Amino acid sequence: MALSDQTRGKLAAVSTATLCTALFKRGLRNQFIQNVRPLGVKGGNMVGPAFTLRYIPAREDLNPLSVFLDRAHPQRKAVEECPPGAVFVVDSRKDARAASAGSILVSRLMMRGVAGIVTDGGFRDSPEIAQLAIPAYHQRPSAPTNLTAHQAIEINGPIGCGDAPVFPGDIMVGDGEGVVVIPAHLADEIAEEATEMTAFEDFVTEKVLEGRSILGLYPPTDEQSQTDFAAWRRQNGR
Amino acid sequence: MALSDQTRGKLAAVSTATLCTALFKRGLRNQFIQNVRPLGVKGGNMVGPAFTLRYIPAREDLNPLSVFLDRAHPQRKAVEECPPGAVFVVDSRKDARAASAGSILVSRLMMRGVAGIVTDGGFRDSPEIAQLAIPAYHQRPSAPTNLTAHQAIEINGPIGCGDAPVFPGDIMVGDGEGVVVIPAHLADEIAEEATEMTAFEDFVTEKVLEGRSILGLYPPTDEQSQTDFAAWRRQNGR
Amino acid sequence: MALSDQTRGKLAAVSTATLCTALFKRGLRNQFIQNVRPLGVKGGNMVGPAFTLRYIPAREDLNPLSVFLDRAHPQRKAVEECPPGAVFVVDSRKDARAASAGSILVSRLMMRGVAGIVTDGGFRDSPEIAQLAIPAYHQRPSAPTNLTAHQAIEINGPIGCGDAPVFPGDIMVGDGEGVVVIPAHLADEIAEEATEMTAFEDFVTEKVLEGRSILGLYPPTDEQSQTDFAAWRRQNGR
Amino acid sequence: MALSDQTRGKLAAVSTATLCTALFKRGLRNQFIQNVRPLGVKGGNMVGPAFTLRYIPAREDLNPLSVFLDRAHPQRKAVEECPPGAVFVVDSRKDARAASAGSILVSRLMMRGVAGIVTDGGFRDSPEIAQLAIPAYHQRPSAPTNLTAHQAIEINGPIGCGDAPVFPGDIMVGDGEGVVVIPAHLADEIAEEATEMTAFEDFVTEKVLEGRSILGLYPPTDEQSQTDFAAWRRQNGR
Amino acid sequence: MALSDQTRGKLAAVSTATLCTALFKRGLRNQFIQNVRPLGVKGGNMVGPAFTLRYIPAREDLNPLSVFLDRAHPQRKAVEECPPGAVFVVDSRKDARAASAGSILVSRLMMRGVAGIVTDGGFRDSPEIAQLAIPAYHQRPSAPTNLTAHQAIEINGPIGCGDAPVFPGDIMVGDGEGVVVIPAHLADEIAEEATEMTAFEDFVTEKVLEGRSILGLYPPTDEQSQTDFAAWRRQNGR
Amino acid sequence: MALSDQTRGKLAAVSTATLCTALFKRGLRNQFIQNVRPLGVKGGNMVGPAFTLRYIPAREDLNPLSVFLDRAHPQRKAVEECPPGAVFVVDSRKDARAASAGSILVSRLMMRGVAGIVTDGGFRDSPEIAQLAIPAYHQRPSAPTNLTAHQAIEINGPIGCGDAPVFPGDIMVGDGEGVVVIPAHLADEIAEEATEMTAFEDFVTEKVLEGRSILGLYPPTDEQSQTDFAAWRRQNGR
Repeated sequence: MALSDQTRGKLAAVSTATLCTALFKRGLRNQFIQNVRPLGVKGGNMVGPAFTLRYIPAREDLNPLSVFLDRAHPQRKAVEECPPGAVFVVDSRKDARAASAGSILVSRLMMRGVAGIVTDGGFRDSPEIAQLAIPAYHQRPSAPTNLTAHQAIEINGPIGCGDAPVFPGDIMVGDGEGVVVIPAHLADEIAEEATEMTAFEDFVTEKVLEGRSILGLYPPTDEQSQTDFAAWRRQNGR
Repeated sequence: MALSDQTRGKLAAVSTATLCTALFKRGLRNQFIQNVRPLGVKGGNMVGPAFTLRYIPAREDLNPLSVFLDRAHPQRKAVEECPPGAVFVVDSRKDARAASAGSILVSRLMMRGVAGIVTDGGFRDSPEIAQLAIPAYHQRPSAPTNLTAHQAIEINGPIGCGDAPVFPGDIMVGDGEGVVVIPAHLADEIAEEATEMTAFEDFVTEKVLEGRSILGLYPPTDEQSQTDFAAWRRQNGR
Repeated sequence: MALSDQTRGKLAAVSTATLCTALFKRGLRNQFIQNVRPLGVKGGNMVGPAFTLRYIPAREDLNPLSVFLDRAHPQRKAVEECPPGAVFVVDSRKDARAASAGSILVSRLMMRGVAGIVTDGGFRDSPEIAQLAIPAYHQRPSAPTNLTAHQAIEINGPIGCGDAPVFPGDIMVGDGEGVVVIPAHLADEIAEEATEMTAFEDFVTEKVLEGRSILGLYPPTDEQSQTDFAAWRRQNGR
Repeated sequence: MALSDQTRGKLAAVSTATLCTALFKRGLRNQFIQNVRPLGVKGGNMVGPAFTLRYIPAREDLNPLSVFLDRAHPQRKAVEECPPGAVFVVDSRKDARAASAGSILVSRLMMRGVAGIVTDGGFRDSPEIAQLAIPAYHQRPSAPTNLTAHQAIEINGPIGCGDAPVFPGDIMVGDGEGVVVIPAHLADEIAEEATEMTAFEDFVTEKVLEGRSILGLYPPTDEQSQTDFAAWRRQNGR
Repeated sequence: MALSDQTRGKLAAVSTATLCTALFKRGLRNQFIQNVRPLGVKGGNMVGPAFTLRYIPAREDLNPLSVFLDRAHPQRKAVEECPPGAVFVVDSRKDARAASAGSILVSRLMMRGVAGIVTDGGFRDSPEIAQLAIPAYHQRPSAPTNLTAHQAIEINGPIGCGDAPVFPGDIMVGDGEGVVVIPAHLADEIAEEATEMTAFEDFVTEKVLEGRSILGLYPPTDEQSQTDFAAWRRQNGR
Repeated sequence: MALSDQTRGKLAAVSTATLCTALFKRGLRNQFIQNVRPLGVKGGNMVGPAFTLRYIPAREDLNPLSVFLDRAHPQRKAVEECPPGAVFVVDSRKDARAASAGSILVSRLMMRGVAGIVTDGGFRDSPEIAQLAIPAYHQRPSAPTNLTAHQAIEINGPIGCGDAPVFPGDIMVGDGEGVVVIPAHLADEIAEEATEMTAFEDFVTEKVLEGRSILGLYPPTDEQSQTDFAAWRRQNGR
């Protein structure tokens, strides 16, 4: 189920908050990745299908630095295989005591056209990553090499990330607030619905900033609110 | 016990750190709201009497989105009833897995002249709230709608917020560091005392930045320090 | 074992991430101070030997404000005794419910030429400290006076800080990411090795940003990578 | 909505696990009180409608020992007012650093015919409480008097307890595992359904202990399983 | 690499503490499963190769109760496929808010000859499991059905459990203290070494209980200690 | 300030809960060691002056198993030096990921006449320690050798233990609930006061179990309660 350009475009223009509400309406309450934040301010939303990497706790004898001499090491392999336009999502078991990745790998993802990277652990070289033109989300900075605590074990399987379930191909959307996981089969309808909701929220925000009460407006239980919104849509072409 | 303009003015010009020390002198050790931070940089202090809202864990059958169709829903009602000049304080049980409020409600509070908002949970639309001209404090951003985890249950009763007790009418003061709760009956004397302490701390800071040792100066156990401070006050009109 | 200017200079030019990897190679996995972050952006690295202060939980009868009337109070004494060029490291038992120090003490450390300050608790007056020209690292802002939760008990003994062991004289290095502890006897060789690693990482970063794959390059298992790096070093004089 | 003897009887004979599944079927996922355990082994289930007490963080000036001289102090008042047959449920904000209650109050509840007591904090005199003939559930033992951290503020309002919502009158059921909260209006049907489920689970357990596979048996997707269960019911009169 | 009867026998007679020390000697510091404890007291050690099950956070639409109608559901399938003599190890992401399994599944494992079960989450029906003749280890009791928080996603892959890495076939040993994970290839030598260490520790314990100092005895730096141990071994046939 | 036999005797006959209340009256709110519990049931109270050992995080190169070949290693030295009748208190920074001590050292302490042992971390060989005739308190069992996470660094200095301050010579009292720290200079008066309080609490308990209300009785604001208590004391010789 490919992510259409149309849906990608819609998801680039709505907030994770609005998407969470659309998911909530469908009974999905745990799709927001808990306790991750963006590194740097990078303009638009991060949007793309999930490509996952899973870590387990590192066993010392299996994780000397020399493991990276192996081109097939899952962490490095995953970085080279993640499709352009996808979001690289790492299950670090919410453990930020060692890094999930550093600036060189994130730079490589950026150069390969990857849409963003998320970990529920931490990045090293975080000041550099904050400057790169690729959205990146983590829990907190963490300088120790990932081998200190993490062994990359599986590429593109289902994972947990920040207490949210992530299946490969689920649509990840990130903004200045955080990251939400949209089940792949719902992406189109959620994108459409969130676009509609955003129009209404923008209308409400405008009215509230003009001084109107939220009662009867948000939600629009007053008929006047609905009339006004219809007029606003015509006026603003939305 | 109304908050006088004079006390409000004094509290606008002192730090939460100084206020905590004044409270400590009176045996009050837990009046700083733990683990909340300001969204955005907004100039002066937040000052105002507490108006509270309490959440309990949300039971799913009582918290569909349709509850907001009810104009009497406590969250919406509280937003419309919070007095201008007051600080809206939310007991979210330190749970930031879902939002305590979003930008539309915070905008409405701002338009109504409310002095600020504090939650020990998280806000959604946090990038927008960071831009609004109303002080706001939370634990971390949280996109899920509050119904996911919180049910608004009581308006303006005594609550806990970030491990601090908050009674309606207590005076809330927030700066770039966080938020402190001053028991209502102590507000005037604490404001006065903190103003005096601030003069002394400003004097000390000036001297320290000139190279003086803190020994004998902070606290001013050397008589010279007291003489110098007296002179400094005359010179600076404080 | 004094910190030579040469080693200090090298450590000023490498990242904590690189240093952690050099330490990892020697079997040292817990030298990164967990969960502290810099206040403000202050340019170069913090580098210096550790001078420590240890807190234990405050017993109320031993910690009234009047303790500071004693010039020999360990917190104040430590601030005046910390050698210029050293880093002041505070064991606050990871407890940020009260402050480890405030802006006046940090200003004094700055004026005395101290290289930086680190606590695994929190600072008060954190907005002011963020503006001072001395690197400072903590967990989160905390307005309550340190006497609320901390009693200064020992100067310059071995401590824990953010789950890392710190012995007086260990070399502390801080950057935009956090702080690492280098055992004193390893400082010279780690500084040298990290300098070499940094040259290589800069080369790799350049190549990655030109579009090269990390496979065979990082680590340089392809002979071509090694040849290219040798050329790059000659060209860049590193 | 009174708790009928019939429903009380049924709830005394089923497990909290089974009740949680019955609630799950109705979309209620957070009715198990997290992280509390029984003190002592006391035979049958605890069953009764919730009578609640809410604590907020204690402000020192409002909580000297002398507050108990007031007969109207909410903690003491609640203990004397809790109806026989009810379960006394305390919202301690999951804070076990000071006690929610001690053996004297729990003894009084027992003598008054109260069905049990639950706190998401801790009890003092826990070894004594473990010996009393009244079910009691807490997080962990805690010797400090409740005034150290808790101020009793409200009797019989809606609360949170261990991340579960508790409304006065909700039916509390506790067994050797923990405590579940059944919304009052569902008590009869949940009790009935859980009784049926328990019969089936007892049948399944018997068969499993005879060596049968769970496939086709649990759930009974094999027709034979359903036939066997029908026979078992007749045979066992359930 | 099968677990020989001889090694199984040795591991049944040593403690997890001794095994951890033998692993520590080989540089393996994280093989003890953190924060799990045994349900009930069941005599001898649990010993067997790991057979694993991995959970991810449950997405509501994928986890209605009806999923168990599918005989191929991974949780049920795993229970029927786990080899006799193996230990069933569950990665529950240290989340005990819902159950990892209940008494019926654990009974089935017992009947199938499985050697034990471990989860870093919690069991439901924990009082019943405590009575079953199969060792079981968890974090704490948890009545909610596993579908509330967990989706079984993978059988017998590498996992994390209580911050320890577990590869299928690793040898799990549990005693009254907890559970340790021995890498498969080290099982024979660790079992042998731990048997030797246990003989020495039993000797030391005997001497200490006779009043001897630990200095020179533990470790046996006094020649006399070594002589005495040699005599003790002859005398006790160990 | 030696602990008199008389005071020791009194402290053996009162509960930690009562002692916490006596300390609370003097403004001491943090003297209960948080989150430790007794291993096994061992009859009377643990009473004795504190003898302390402090751990810092272990640096790998300083903590191979061979450190125990040194008779002067602080952990072993402390075990041999702790005075008979004292309580051995360990500051493990609340970290139970590795052991604070094991059964051999605890046996040696027992044989030397030490009154008990407390750590805010965990013990290894905990099932054996539970059987020894010496009170022992910890957070949870932990099989890994202490060198995995802890380096013994200081004998008999001031420490923190479970968030409580402990000075050498402070009087430690433990019962089935936990452990409280009495400042040395208060031991006699607290012991006396707690003895009186215990008499009253025993009287109250008796009356409550006879069916009397707590109002007017606890505290004894009814004159009748005071009369009855006086009679009870005469009758019971207390």
